[in-house]
Amino acid sequence: MPTAFAADSVGLVSPQTASFDEPLALACGRLLGSYELIYETYGQLNASRSNAVLICHALSGHHHAAGYHSPQDRKPGWWDSCIGPGKPIDTNRFFVVALNNLGGCNGSTGPSSLNPATGKPYGADFPMVTVEDWVHSQARLADRLGISQWAAVVGGSLGGMQALQWTISYPERVRHCLAIATAPRLSAQNIAFNEVARQAILSDPEFHGGHFQERGVIPRRGLMLARMVGHITYLSDDAMGSKFGRDLKNDKLNYDFTNVEFQVESYLRYQGEEFSARFDANTYLLMTKALDYFDPAQAHDGDLAATLAPAQADFLLLSFTTDWRFSPARSREIVDALVAAGKNVSYLEIEAAHGHDAFLLPIPRYLQAFTRYMNRIVV
Amino acid sequence: MPTAFAADSVGLVSPQTASFDEPLALACGRLLGSYELIYETYGQLNASRSNAVLICHALSGHHHAAGYHSPQDRKPGWWDSCIGPGKPIDTNRFFVVALNNLGGCNGSTGPSSLNPATGKPYGADFPMVTVEDWVHSQARLADRLGISQWAAVVGGSLGGMQALQWTISYPERVRHCLAIATAPRLSAQNIAFNEVARQAILSDPEFHGGHFQERGVIPRRGLMLARMVGHITYLSDDAMGSKFGRDLKNDKLNYDFTNVEFQVESYLRYQGEEFSARFDANTYLLMTKALDYFDPAQAHDGDLAATLAPAQADFLLLSFTTDWRFSPARSREIVDALVAAGKNVSYLEIEAAHGHDAFLLPIPRYLQAFTRYMNRIVV
Repeated sequence: MPTAFAADSVGLVSPQTASFDEPLALACGRLLGSYELIYETYGQLNASRSNAVLICHALSGHHHAAGYHSPQDRKPGWWDSCIGPGKPIDTNRFFVVALNNLGGCNGSTGPSSLNPATGKPYGADFPMVTVEDWVHSQARLADRLGISQWAAVVGGSLGGMQALQWTISYPERVRHCLAIATAPRLSAQNIAFNEVARQAILSDPEFHGGHFQERGVIPRRGLMLARMVGHITYLSDDAMGSKFGRDLKNDKLNYDFTNVEFQVESYLRYQGEEFSARFDANTYLLMTKALDYFDPAQAHDGDLAATLAPAQADFLLLSFTTDWRFSPARSREIVDALVAAGKNVSYLEIEAAHGHDAFLLPIPRYLQAFTRYMNRIVV
Repeated sequence: MPTAFAADSVGLVSPQTASFDEPLALACGRLLGSYELIYETYGQLNASRSNAVLICHALSGHHHAAGYHSPQDRKPGWWDSCIGPGKPIDTNRFFVVALNNLGGCNGSTGPSSLNPATGKPYGADFPMVTVEDWVHSQARLADRLGISQWAAVVGGSLGGMQALQWTISYPERVRHCLAIATAPRLSAQNIAFNEVARQAILSDPEFHGGHFQERGVIPRRGLMLARMVGHITYLSDDAMGSKFGRDLKNDKLNYDFTNVEFQVESYLRYQGEEFSARFDANTYLLMTKALDYFDPAQAHDGDLAATLAPAQADFLLLSFTTDWRFSPARSREIVDALVAAGKNVSYLEIEAAHGHDAFLLPIPRYLQAFTRYMNRIVV
């Protein structure tokens, strides 16, 4: 019995895997001898190969950005609200490529993959990967797919950093860069939150120096705490307030540590537990480090305009008013640098109560701006 | 060889202990049969006993608010910038009482005290204590000291909540209430951060259900994580940025998890480690719960003005512009309620880059406003 998907869904999708044998030189100085990237595509590459769009994922994202893996799937891909027929990234016009980054835990080579040198999982021996490394690996995937130039590279948060890095590392290969809810580098506070998350994982006795997989355990508590603290930074104070306020879990207060008193505690614990069951701790560590290390302007003594000067792309920057992880001020830093560098840049600050998570949500004004920009792209 | 203390220091001080045998009925429904409160006093109680000021401490505070315990002490009490001859709380005029709250770990009866019923440390069996409970216990200490009415009850953060509660629980016993950098109740985000801190402690294998003391261990990792996440919320993004920015710990990046990359990580780890060596985990849990539970307006269906209507005190509310833990908006909620209730209230929002921690710092505008208000108090 076939299930009918919504008319604006890409429907059933299947991941594919690309294997690479040429060693990849990483920013940390190490070489990755061979690796695989898992990816999905939506829509059709046109004859002139001019309609390809790359989706870059954020901290806990992956290659499954839209559609369903089976008719039984309860949830579509993580950016299904923005990818599909008639959606902002319109699969009637664009050929969309979404991958799981190197170091990930959803199918691309990462800490839970077997290290060919030892025959055991890499674990903590997986090399540190940076936004630049990801962009280089994505460029190889583009080569493999016969895409010499992206119509657009698109990403939110850490994904937006990759989109920016593309215009610096491969200026001639990007016509449009859409960087959403992102920042040109982390602030001390951003790094501090990442460090708490890392310490939660690293200090979990079940972490075993990153080689927990060989012992058949996972640092569940550490990963749960890391996700809880992360999750608070994804939501705005207002959004948490209107969603939970001080609502109690039960009718009355328990005055103990066993029972949950407030709904918000229950929600956070659930988020943490659910995440710790599905995400790899070593990948989480790597992703937070990639965030910390991202600072392209450093090569130009902090001059972001000089850093972005080689870019040939046009830019759309979007931010959300209540995002305190990467506030609108952080996007404006990028916009100012792009203007100073003489680039074509559009910028919109979107009223949204949802905090950083807004970039994943179907907020009408957001979808409208996103759609209009994408519709203007000539393919 | 006598050491000279600064002229505006209260100098050498010694804590005293008051024992109470009359059981204290707690908000949680349990009785505390007997207990001790450790406290310090600075200045002299005048003949009419009209110049007494109570200092209420915040989450990790205690009775040692000013002066030195020995000439060798490197640091004075935690609010030494505000208490002393010629300081905002001028010990030439006022008799100052500072105590360690019930449930604390600095000398008052708390989880690390011996439970007379078992002969072992209370640990997790210590009852939950609330801001209301503290105020009742403080009222008994006032009785013991012969203070029927405070010239002022003063506190910042959780201490400000106690100051407010005094005006509700004992309206006739408070002439002035100074509530600094505080809130009428926690927001969902505030509770969420507390919950992360608690889960860090509760999930530490060395916590042993709160009975770690009997086993001779401490949940060091959990307490460290709790403090790290707390510490981030005490500082503003700006303060962290100007203090640390993205400064590296060493000359170059290490690209590993063993070395600290950024100064801010090093600072946070140090803060966490130092704290975990001196603070009791069960007390930390109790203090965060006292914060969560504080919501005096709940008894009046959320009507804060009605809640504060019985107060006979005059009020000074102070907040700091970059405080995002208890932002100026939270102080304004209290000010609005006080105005609606027809109380005398002064309010000042102080420009300060330091975030929530500002209330502990010698910021000139802050000290000036604090001093002027205190000087107006008739004793």
